[in-house]
Amino acid sequence: MDDKVIIFDTTLRDGEQSPGATMNTAEKLRIASKLEELGVDVIEAGFPASSPGDFDAVRQISDMIKNSSVCGLARALPGDIKTCADSIKSAKHPRIHTFVSTSEIHLKYQMKKSQAEVIEIAREAVRLSRSLCEDVEFSAMDASRTDPDYLCRVFEVAIEAGARTLNIPDTVGYAIPDEFGALVSYVLNNTKNIDKAIVSVHCHNDLGLGTANTLAAIRAGARQAEVAINGIGERAGNTSLEEIVMALKTRNDLLKVDTRIDTTKIYPISRLVSMITGIQVQPNKAIVGANAFSHESGIHQDGVLKNPTTYEIMKPETIGLHSSKLVLGKHSGKHAIRNYLVDMGYNLSDDEIQSVFEKFKNLADRKKDITDEDLEALVNEGVLRSSDLFALEYIHISSGTTVDPLAHVKMLINGRSTEESSTGNGPIDAAYQAIAKLTRTSATLLRFSISALTGGTDAQGEVTVRLKEDGLVALGRGSDMDIITASAKAYINGLNRLEYLKANPPSTPETM
Amino acid sequence: MDDKVIIFDTTLRDGEQSPGATMNTAEKLRIASKLEELGVDVIEAGFPASSPGDFDAVRQISDMIKNSSVCGLARALPGDIKTCADSIKSAKHPRIHTFVSTSEIHLKYQMKKSQAEVIEIAREAVRLSRSLCEDVEFSAMDASRTDPDYLCRVFEVAIEAGARTLNIPDTVGYAIPDEFGALVSYVLNNTKNIDKAIVSVHCHNDLGLGTANTLAAIRAGARQAEVAINGIGERAGNTSLEEIVMALKTRNDLLKVDTRIDTTKIYPISRLVSMITGIQVQPNKAIVGANAFSHESGIHQDGVLKNPTTYEIMKPETIGLHSSKLVLGKHSGKHAIRNYLVDMGYNLSDDEIQSVFEKFKNLADRKKDITDEDLEALVNEGVLRSSDLFALEYIHISSGTTVDPLAHVKMLINGRSTEESSTGNGPIDAAYQAIAKLTRTSATLLRFSISALTGGTDAQGEVTVRLKEDGLVALGRGSDMDIITASAKAYINGLNRLEYLKANPPSTPETM
Repeated sequence: MDDKVIIFDTTLRDGEQSPGATMNTAEKLRIASKLEELGVDVIEAGFPASSPGDFDAVRQISDMIKNSSVCGLARALPGDIKTCADSIKSAKHPRIHTFVSTSEIHLKYQMKKSQAEVIEIAREAVRLSRSLCEDVEFSAMDASRTDPDYLCRVFEVAIEAGARTLNIPDTVGYAIPDEFGALVSYVLNNTKNIDKAIVSVHCHNDLGLGTANTLAAIRAGARQAEVAINGIGERAGNTSLEEIVMALKTRNDLLKVDTRIDTTKIYPISRLVSMITGIQVQPNKAIVGANAFSHESGIHQDGVLKNPTTYEIMKPETIGLHSSKLVLGKHSGKHAIRNYLVDMGYNLSDDEIQSVFEKFKNLADRKKDITDEDLEALVNEGVLRSSDLFALEYIHISSGTTVDPLAHVKMLINGRSTEESSTGNGPIDAAYQAIAKLTRTSATLLRFSISALTGGTDAQGEVTVRLKEDGLVALGRGSDMDIITASAKAYINGLNRLEYLKANPPSTPETM
Repeated sequence: MDDKVIIFDTTLRDGEQSPGATMNTAEKLRIASKLEELGVDVIEAGFPASSPGDFDAVRQISDMIKNSSVCGLARALPGDIKTCADSIKSAKHPRIHTFVSTSEIHLKYQMKKSQAEVIEIAREAVRLSRSLCEDVEFSAMDASRTDPDYLCRVFEVAIEAGARTLNIPDTVGYAIPDEFGALVSYVLNNTKNIDKAIVSVHCHNDLGLGTANTLAAIRAGARQAEVAINGIGERAGNTSLEEIVMALKTRNDLLKVDTRIDTTKIYPISRLVSMITGIQVQPNKAIVGANAFSHESGIHQDGVLKNPTTYEIMKPETIGLHSSKLVLGKHSGKHAIRNYLVDMGYNLSDDEIQSVFEKFKNLADRKKDITDEDLEALVNEGVLRSSDLFALEYIHISSGTTVDPLAHVKMLINGRSTEESSTGNGPIDAAYQAIAKLTRTSATLLRFSISALTGGTDAQGEVTVRLKEDGLVALGRGSDMDIITASAKAYINGLNRLEYLKANPPSTPETM
């Protein structure tokens, strides 16, 4: 049996289904390129039939990615499958992933189809997919609640029709590891021609068991794991890529299989996905949480000093986490910044480095010590911004316990300087009302979140907003030492992205 | 075999070891009382020998709690054990939990003791504990990396000396479920007189497997699970209480054991622990994450509308999460607020409700729709505040892109009104510098975090600060629609708590 597990990353597909995590094409391309560097075998890039925007993102990712397979999701419908095939045709290693539900509960209440009808749907879907693409994956949705014998029959038909990866999803996050491992064994032992295919699993984390169910399946013979960075996805999310990869690596003595992942890229991509989606990673998250490598108790600290293996089963450097927090000051040169960025896992062009460097100098004038987090914010603001129809020229606010908050904002709009004042509920609301008047936007604010990047009051604050207008959704981000200015920047960034989307419209809403 | 699993909660002991999560006595008492209402069997209240503050907290919890056992941790040292016994003597159901390392790696590098020496240490520790307390638990630290035969020998000695709970900790979060279940079976089958004791497990989440390892142990016959609310604890934390309880409940068909937990209290205590410790729960956290019950994909939404069981294995109400978000407006009366608070799981006194109601009226004048989160913030600010030496009378700030941020602050200090202005890096820094001048504090700011409670810009912001002065650590919280005012309130709240600690000093630092 092969000792490598195929890592199939679904951050851009199931991960994007996390509430509020919709990403634009530029963001998806950036994540896809980092997934390729990470060494992911298959990138599930989207669900092309769900919207023209999704189609376009999958197409552009297919153009760009060389070393990983690029996969599109398609319901078992001819239209979905043809659209999917079209979106991935430029990929060096394209894959169609088609699926249909097989559980009694889904057949009865949602699809109102018989088992025999679903078998024919699966056969036709795989056959059509295979006529359009060599590499076809078939998923039996809600497999963990499907009658095992029926599941084997469906898989036999899928193999016969040409599928070479068969996926067993625990769609509702219901399985227990022993039971799930036994289901995988059952499929391996009771499906005709199963040796022609790779068995895959796709687990959800509703009971906190995504990682364990995936490992149990691998021990039973599954050789593809469908995972997402930071474990994002529908509801409580998917199995975390970082947990599976590090469990297989750390316990190779017992599990005896490995992946092709470059683990030193794990931490940077975790931060990138968290910044782009706005979904924060909790401090006690395994592997990538801020406290994952911190030892607090005196007994543990004493042990680690005597010998790290007493309490540390992984080294922080293995996941690309460098212990030194304090990095750079006012007098650091561009060369030092470049080196530091490379250490942090960023591959930037000269222009991009120049842009980050200028922002760095500006910040260093005001803040004594620049940390990892500060530099990351500069990279993300410097590199990920869209081109700007709207730009902030000036903001002034006056606020307090006994006055009505007042904001005065000056903006460049299409190159023309214009200004406006407004009051509001709190200074941020006042600033937003002034900006809304200036830009005449009718966008509604779906989400607004603030995080302080470091411990001190002179830390930069990072603000993320999610805006919606006419069915289009855009994310905006801004960071600044002044939280109100950061908020204004985030709002204006989001409005710029909305303008971009309006100029490049997806013709139907993004979510099915 | 007993079909109930004993839930041993260590939020107040191992959970408090999360970096930055130090809690004061009032906060610990509040959490302990909620743990009792939740139906936890054993509350590990602290490590009494580690500091007078910890001793005092355990003593006060022992005075208060009637329905749960109250447990103190003690190294296998006579001094620790006597101090522990002293701290829990008023408890209705006291327990001493003593521990020593048993793994070769700990014996060799950290303790520099032989296996025979450790056996004698365990024997003496349990014997002394048992002479002071009927209910004694013994833990073999780093058990998952201990030679299984040696582990059984140590446990035999502990049983002989009087321990009635034997705990198998996966101290470094290294175990894989199959392996860990097998270790529990081995102990049950190879330890003399094991039927006189309950086997317990204490798992860490470094590889994301805490819940799965605990379940594997329960399936193998363990009948106590050591867990923490939100899975907080050293490094990536402990097994989450909510995941174990809900997995046992949801999959009772397979697992056939249950707990005594009232699951409808899970969500409120999760929020309380998160607010007190400042450790946020990520949106994709199983059970208690903000997205755990959200369905985003069109296919899933369609299914849930047709029949919830198609995609929902648990109902949000089961964990005390109520779906309606919009609750109350300007004209809601005190009765409505009281009902809502009861629905949210808060049992408040009349005075407390009156205080929340006044704050509510004030907020409703400025904000149209009051949500769950708003009300929670009012409860936590209204109920958890210490008595105030310092009070904020007035704050005014002026800030923007082209002016130096300026804050003017008026405070009541010991009843005397006084005022000060300051500039700073950003308006929050300016406000903090003015407050520092007024209070003459020398406290340093360890951590500063902001979260917006709801989606809109008129949401309340909630600020948490952690302050340190002379080895004392205090947390401060503030919420307000104006983020700068919220920040000032949080700082002043933290300074008040520091004053309280200075007046009631623990004589050594809190962490060993």
